Amino acid sequence: MGSASNEKIGVLLASLPARLTGKVCEIANRTKKLGQDDPRRITHSLKVGFALTLVSLFYYYQPLYNSFGASAMWAVVTVIVVFEFSVGATLGKGLNRGLATLVAGALGIGAHHLASLSGHIGEPILLGIFVFLQAATSTFIRFFPKIKARYDYGLLIFILTFSLISVSGFRDDEVLDLAHKRISTIFIGGFACVIVSILVFPVWAGEDLHNLIAANIEKLGNFLEGFGGEYFKTLEDIAESKDDKTFLLGYKSVLNSKSSEESLANFARWEPGHGRFSFRHPWTQYLKVGALIQQCSYRIEALHGRLITADVQVSPEIRNRIEESCTKLSLESGKALKALASDFRTMTKSPSADPHIANAKAAAKSLKSLLKSGLREDIDLLEVVPAATVASLLLDVVNCTEKIVESVYELGSLANFETVEATVSPEKSHELGKICSDKKSPMMDCPHVVIKITESPPVLPVNIGKTSQQALEV
Amino acid sequence: MGSASNEKIGVLLASLPARLTGKVCEIANRTKKLGQDDPRRITHSLKVGFALTLVSLFYYYQPLYNSFGASAMWAVVTVIVVFEFSVGATLGKGLNRGLATLVAGALGIGAHHLASLSGHIGEPILLGIFVFLQAATSTFIRFFPKIKARYDYGLLIFILTFSLISVSGFRDDEVLDLAHKRISTIFIGGFACVIVSILVFPVWAGEDLHNLIAANIEKLGNFLEGFGGEYFKTLEDIAESKDDKTFLLGYKSVLNSKSSEESLANFARWEPGHGRFSFRHPWTQYLKVGALIQQCSYRIEALHGRLITADVQVSPEIRNRIEESCTKLSLESGKALKALASDFRTMTKSPSADPHIANAKAAAKSLKSLLKSGLREDIDLLEVVPAATVASLLLDVVNCTEKIVESVYELGSLANFETVEATVSPEKSHELGKICSDKKSPMMDCPHVVIKITESPPVLPVNIGKTSQQALEV
Repeated sequence: MGSASNEKIGVLLASLPARLTGKVCEIANRTKKLGQDDPRRITHSLKVGFALTLVSLFYYYQPLYNSFGASAMWAVVTVIVVFEFSVGATLGKGLNRGLATLVAGALGIGAHHLASLSGHIGEPILLGIFVFLQAATSTFIRFFPKIKARYDYGLLIFILTFSLISVSGFRDDEVLDLAHKRISTIFIGGFACVIVSILVFPVWAGEDLHNLIAANIEKLGNFLEGFGGEYFKTLEDIAESKDDKTFLLGYKSVLNSKSSEESLANFARWEPGHGRFSFRHPWTQYLKVGALIQQCSYRIEALHGRLITADVQVSPEIRNRIEESCTKLSLESGKALKALASDFRTMTKSPSADPHIANAKAAAKSLKSLLKSGLREDIDLLEVVPAATVASLLLDVVNCTEKIVESVYELGSLANFETVEATVSPEKSHELGKICSDKKSPMMDCPHVVIKITESPPVLPVNIGKTSQQALEV
Repeated sequence: MGSASNEKIGVLLASLPARLTGKVCEIANRTKKLGQDDPRRITHSLKVGFALTLVSLFYYYQPLYNSFGASAMWAVVTVIVVFEFSVGATLGKGLNRGLATLVAGALGIGAHHLASLSGHIGEPILLGIFVFLQAATSTFIRFFPKIKARYDYGLLIFILTFSLISVSGFRDDEVLDLAHKRISTIFIGGFACVIVSILVFPVWAGEDLHNLIAANIEKLGNFLEGFGGEYFKTLEDIAESKDDKTFLLGYKSVLNSKSSEESLANFARWEPGHGRFSFRHPWTQYLKVGALIQQCSYRIEALHGRLITADVQVSPEIRNRIEESCTKLSLESGKALKALASDFRTMTKSPSADPHIANAKAAAKSLKSLLKSGLREDIDLLEVVPAATVASLLLDVVNCTEKIVESVYELGSLANFETVEATVSPEKSHELGKICSDKKSPMMDCPHVVIKITESPPVLPVNIGKTSQQALEV
């Protein structure tokens, strides 16, 4: 028994180097993947190292150290806690920290002075009451969702500074000196962060949000483009095909992207104008678009469920009847979303999604009329169910797609997207006019909406020719 | 023109007090609601105030202040940054802060000593390299998702302490003294937080997670219980009814509860055993159950979409044919989930959901066979689509419900839920046996599964009598 367990330990020890190498390799691979997935992570790490070294050496060198004293370490602390991945988050934290320190410093000095007037016994009691009241109140205020989203860190620093300054056992003039030093060192640290964050390979939360929304629209588009072909594959097709189906799973990340959209929008609000984004870019509208995209992704999740359950029991009659219009509907919705995503990504306003939407709607109409026509007598309703479900979900998806397109157009108007070759059908121009006139100040919100009314027909023909379609896609 | 704008200003000023009162009332109402929604928010605010006042006064009183010096303020800082809403989050932050300070302190002293050996010119260069390398590496490590979830704060404090200690211009013995003071004050602050957090009205993240999952199961159950009746309401019913339909919207919050579940699970892992939860409670299994609940909520979102679109065009023939089985299916799935939620909440293991699941499955079977039987000749397929979609989504929901029930049973085995009157049918006992035998060490994982095999029939009858059902529900 003893020798057996010894042997076991021996085997374990012998296999240890191999297992260790395996573990190290795994970690190395993961690290590599993390860097490859988003190389800005590497840049960010180097930026933090750079800013910190800068401020640390500034703190290390004696002449500066003498003038600031031990307070200089606040500069180092500020760099470490304020430097975030995106410019918006860094600015938000920096401003929160700076402003909260100023306000809490002033109030803390006031509280300290007030307490010192009340004598040796009254002072600690009064200070205790002050600290308790402000800490409890500020902590409660942090629960308000809107304040939590934007000023949580500021309130934390408010509690901290107020407590430190009011309770410090210094004399009034010492306190003033302390407050002054702390504020100037925090300013130095915050300034270093903001400068490095903006000037060295900046990461803009606003741009990230913009790209996230574009990518999400595209993911839904990819799924819809591929869905029709995938669903109506015959059993032989399935056996033959060995192609990659990962494009069908891309939408999964859209289901849970709400929280990242919200935090990015909160960071983006702090950012100054950059590139194609102005300071007052309509970030709230991004959240509205995001919510509609999520609505659509829930429908797509249900559609995906139909793919997995592999509805082989569907009757060939029904299948053949609806295959064409379903495939077309799905394909055109997908194309509309992808065209929209590509316009959105480049921040241009073009009606390139419209013909696809019109086609999808036409396909929806023909699907409905196909379903309306009679059936042969002895149809098994159970065989109809899966196909009917898919048809109905696809009809829902057309509605969702239209809503997404509309909300992106609205965003385009609010954010003054560049108009590219505005070949808009009369209907469309009417819609755009409506959007503008719904606003309180139409001239301020929609200054750049240039609409050329061309003679394209009010409703696009169902089987639009390839050439006319391409003309509209410019 | 001038007098007109003056008048405007006058009107504005006159309405100012009213608007101000309105604003104040609004804020007061929101504050009240925030407190009423979760009274623990008020307790938490008072707890923070209490802990902070305690440590501040400790810092204020001269004898202690003299022995700790300016380092004593770290105790105040620690209380403010470490005190979180739940015990788990507080413990996690406290341990992260304490351990990171210890490790970084030791490494920082080493780096400081090493640099001091290399002369007047080499010292700042070497220190700069050390700070840069550790800051860049630690910042990159923070991007690993698993580390970010549990050790993010620790790494932040690691960078902070290492930089502060290695760069400080002190002599070696002074540094040791500084490190010792900092660690002891952080310990005092952290200890105050943890003690107050655990002893005064503790908020356990684990309990919150448990209740969240139970509430989510219940919300889905509520929807399903009400859905059948709501969907098959005739137009007259709709005109008559003025009842509250908010129970149909409860599930909406389930769609996006993934991120809160994940953070609660991360906090819960730090918590010691409390109440009915042991230290090694299977929190990961909660996340699995949560994921299945979300899967189900996506289906329910699609079902809810059918309610909104108000499918009035559904043919009465189809409607009448499927109404009974659909309503039953939905009702029984809902009852199963609600029974499960109530068992789960009390952490008991009872088969009270099983008869409902069996009923739902039977209803699903009869729905399928109803659909299978022929249709009259001239049926309009378009009239079939909405009903078919609802039927198909409901059939999906039965599968989801079953999966949720199974995963909760598994969780019950892993977490040793108390077995209440285990009247289990032979099938069920077989399933449980399978779950246990799937584990590597059955005796360790399922020690308390007491199964009494009674003589209840292997498959429950479709129209189970009220009395026998009640017997099973005990």
